[in-house]
Amino acid sequence: MLHNENNTDLAAEDSLLAAIDLGSNSFHMVVAKLAHGELTTIDIMSEKVQLAAGIGPNGMLDEAAFERGLACLSRFAQRLADIPNDAIKIVGTNALREANNRNAFADAAEQVLNVPLEIIAGREEARLIYLGVSHTLANTPGARLVIDIGGGSTECIIGERFTPLEMESLHMGCVSFTQRYFTDGVLSEKNFKQAEYGALRELQVIRERYLETGWTSCVGSSGSIKAIRNAGIECGFSDELITRKSLQQLREKILSFENIDTLEIPGVKPERTAILPAGLAILSALFESLGIEEMAFSEGALREGLLYDMAGRKNHEDVRERSISALSQRYHVDEQHAQRVEHTALLALAQVKESWALTGHAHHDMLSWAARTHEIGLTIAHSGFHKHSAYLLQHSDLAGFSALEQQLLSFLVRGNRRKFPREEFKQLPDARKETFKRLCVLLRLAVVLNRSRSSARLPAFDLKAESKQLSLRFPDGWLDMHPLTHMELEQEADYLKNADIKFTFS
Amino acid sequence: MLHNENNTDLAAEDSLLAAIDLGSNSFHMVVAKLAHGELTTIDIMSEKVQLAAGIGPNGMLDEAAFERGLACLSRFAQRLADIPNDAIKIVGTNALREANNRNAFADAAEQVLNVPLEIIAGREEARLIYLGVSHTLANTPGARLVIDIGGGSTECIIGERFTPLEMESLHMGCVSFTQRYFTDGVLSEKNFKQAEYGALRELQVIRERYLETGWTSCVGSSGSIKAIRNAGIECGFSDELITRKSLQQLREKILSFENIDTLEIPGVKPERTAILPAGLAILSALFESLGIEEMAFSEGALREGLLYDMAGRKNHEDVRERSISALSQRYHVDEQHAQRVEHTALLALAQVKESWALTGHAHHDMLSWAARTHEIGLTIAHSGFHKHSAYLLQHSDLAGFSALEQQLLSFLVRGNRRKFPREEFKQLPDARKETFKRLCVLLRLAVVLNRSRSSARLPAFDLKAESKQLSLRFPDGWLDMHPLTHMELEQEADYLKNADIKFTFS
Repeated sequence: MLHNENNTDLAAEDSLLAAIDLGSNSFHMVVAKLAHGELTTIDIMSEKVQLAAGIGPNGMLDEAAFERGLACLSRFAQRLADIPNDAIKIVGTNALREANNRNAFADAAEQVLNVPLEIIAGREEARLIYLGVSHTLANTPGARLVIDIGGGSTECIIGERFTPLEMESLHMGCVSFTQRYFTDGVLSEKNFKQAEYGALRELQVIRERYLETGWTSCVGSSGSIKAIRNAGIECGFSDELITRKSLQQLREKILSFENIDTLEIPGVKPERTAILPAGLAILSALFESLGIEEMAFSEGALREGLLYDMAGRKNHEDVRERSISALSQRYHVDEQHAQRVEHTALLALAQVKESWALTGHAHHDMLSWAARTHEIGLTIAHSGFHKHSAYLLQHSDLAGFSALEQQLLSFLVRGNRRKFPREEFKQLPDARKETFKRLCVLLRLAVVLNRSRSSARLPAFDLKAESKQLSLRFPDGWLDMHPLTHMELEQEADYLKNADIKFTFS
Repeated sequence: MLHNENNTDLAAEDSLLAAIDLGSNSFHMVVAKLAHGELTTIDIMSEKVQLAAGIGPNGMLDEAAFERGLACLSRFAQRLADIPNDAIKIVGTNALREANNRNAFADAAEQVLNVPLEIIAGREEARLIYLGVSHTLANTPGARLVIDIGGGSTECIIGERFTPLEMESLHMGCVSFTQRYFTDGVLSEKNFKQAEYGALRELQVIRERYLETGWTSCVGSSGSIKAIRNAGIECGFSDELITRKSLQQLREKILSFENIDTLEIPGVKPERTAILPAGLAILSALFESLGIEEMAFSEGALREGLLYDMAGRKNHEDVRERSISALSQRYHVDEQHAQRVEHTALLALAQVKESWALTGHAHHDMLSWAARTHEIGLTIAHSGFHKHSAYLLQHSDLAGFSALEQQLLSFLVRGNRRKFPREEFKQLPDARKETFKRLCVLLRLAVVLNRSRSSARLPAFDLKAESKQLSLRFPDGWLDMHPLTHMELEQEADYLKNADIKFTFS
């Protein structure tokens, strides 16, 4: 089912990749083989964990849902035993975005799987869905509207070939809408109408913009849309394509039942039936608001998007690279200065990466990205700009980045000057505290050494690290000739005491 | 001394204006007459309150300094008795920016003066200083560098005629540097050098940019620079212009004394002597870093800038208007939609301003500005964009706005949708809570009514307010034809319960 239409550049390696998607309703895992640039699915697992249904009024995932989730992951973990950690990607979506105890769950999941769980933003989810779906479709011209109705959110994307043009994640899903509009389980015209209005209201945000961009074909993915398509076929309302008329007929059929508990629809699995009415209301609202006449179905989904994203990264097509460049342009970064800081930071990293255990690709990339964006906050104000840079990195829609990656990048940039940010440091996951403190120290050093913003080259320097120590050595006499740098390094040594690092220089 | 070179448009009104500047070292008041577009100073008062010296290691203004400040203001208040409140402007600068108990001081000051104390950001201070200084100079072409060394900050501005091109406020001042580098009072080469390095370090941030912009003449203002100029003249080191050589000679003279306690310099008042060495170190660093050869002195200062700013506002040349437009452009606001929301909000305001006591110009302006900027945060991300808009309004350098005004504007925008922001509401000054809650409610209503983003005109509506009630009436039948709006107003009524407002509609 999966193959790669754009394989000219992919290396001829033969390796396994796995993607796990912790959705609001179900958890899915897909394992694929990447050979000669082509992905072939070799294993699929799905479990209906119903995470979203386990979020209580206090916003916390309750103990039962928490345990259901972990139990499912431990089953997945068995299948992952032979796959290297950096070939596994695990993401959480809306239910985990919303759960107040998401960090506890992410920590526990990482214990089980030995791979970090990344909770991704809605638009990143939209991007990955589009990537997954567009790889299942013919590589033809013309804009496509892709819609995925999840348990807690619905993603709407317009794209051409493999490039998304518009992406949005809306706060409506078949699980959350079932809870909100069919609380009593009654299949009444009124409940149905309220659910449709709720969806129409969410859609107002994108309607005008999407209609303006336009599309020539419309494709749906996700379990809800698949169930609606199947029901249409089984009941004889439609063929492969979902139409306005088939939606109307399915609605009438559903309303002929009195309560969700007794609902039975041909072609729909019993465990899906309860959330079918809400899913249908959402899809009907989409048809009405966006003027859709018919919709095809694609098996492509978030998890396939994750696989293609990983395959791209292996092939140096990291979309994160583009996100960072776009950010730096949008906020008019002084690129020359940013490059000087990046250069110094990477020189420093090269010298201490063994002794400070910073040998991963991710360490190199995060330090480089932090250097390139550390001054974006200057657009807002000079005063406290490191805080503004950190705010933008934390909250911007950055394609390819997980929420955790954005938090870590934001932390590095937050700490690029002035006091070491102890509060933000405390909020990092324990497993990353030491690593990111060290990366932050290297970034700070690069910033201090380039503070004159001069294009004059810095001299070669020796940097040595031991666990909580860092020592810097310039060529003899250089520091005496640069008393200002001397003074700044003294100040820096003082700041680093707060990070529990003993910094010496000569 | 004060007159207006740009008076063609000023109305021929004859009124009094007063400006008070609560500096880190001294408080200053100036009262001027505005007649036929010309400002004439009629009264000046200054007191050396030494606010900055009263900030302890806990970051709090101590009781003695707090009381010194209020006592000075109560003396000023006597002179202000005949001046209408809206013709008085009171601003606080660096010492108050830094004091953790600034809000308590601002509240107490407002009690004494019956006019709000506005604590302004460093760059706003720089803009006002430039406005004050440029009005004392001939209106000739060519860029000017203007420098003002205050007690806690130093403002550096490059401008042409009345327009600033570069503005920065640096964290160095004659009071703070005396405390930091002359703690022991010893007039040693070492202490002097450290203070100079400290200033050079701060200057690195602007050096390159300022040298690139360039200037043809250089002017200093502030008590420190005046004292240095006077000392140069009295000691025979220079004439009216401060030169590199005169700075060097004054430095040698100061170093011929052993301790600040015994320092005496001709032309410098005894109460200024203690902070002269730090002021001289900062000025010497400015000369060195920026390659200044000579500097003239101007009596113009922040308080004169405030007067000209007020005179401009009276004449509809409100610089805040320009700041809002610039912000809306920088963040690519959908201007048509912003205008629709503004239009609806002002229609709503017009109907309830008497009953809700929102008759001031400021109420109208703040509501209009909030409507025009409420979507700037969309540049960062769609998700939670009202929070991002609020962040940008709170933290951006906005010429003409005080920190309090930015906080209030930020609050309105923060509350433009979703839940009423109770936490942010609690942080508003008590005197403004009710007013800004009401303005926020009007903005929300305008946003809800325009949520379809459609250019179709809304029908005329009737809005009536009583203290905690608001009722909205559409033409008969309109709501029935717009069930989505009906549903959204129901939701809004629910949200407004949290703001303790009973909202009804029909």
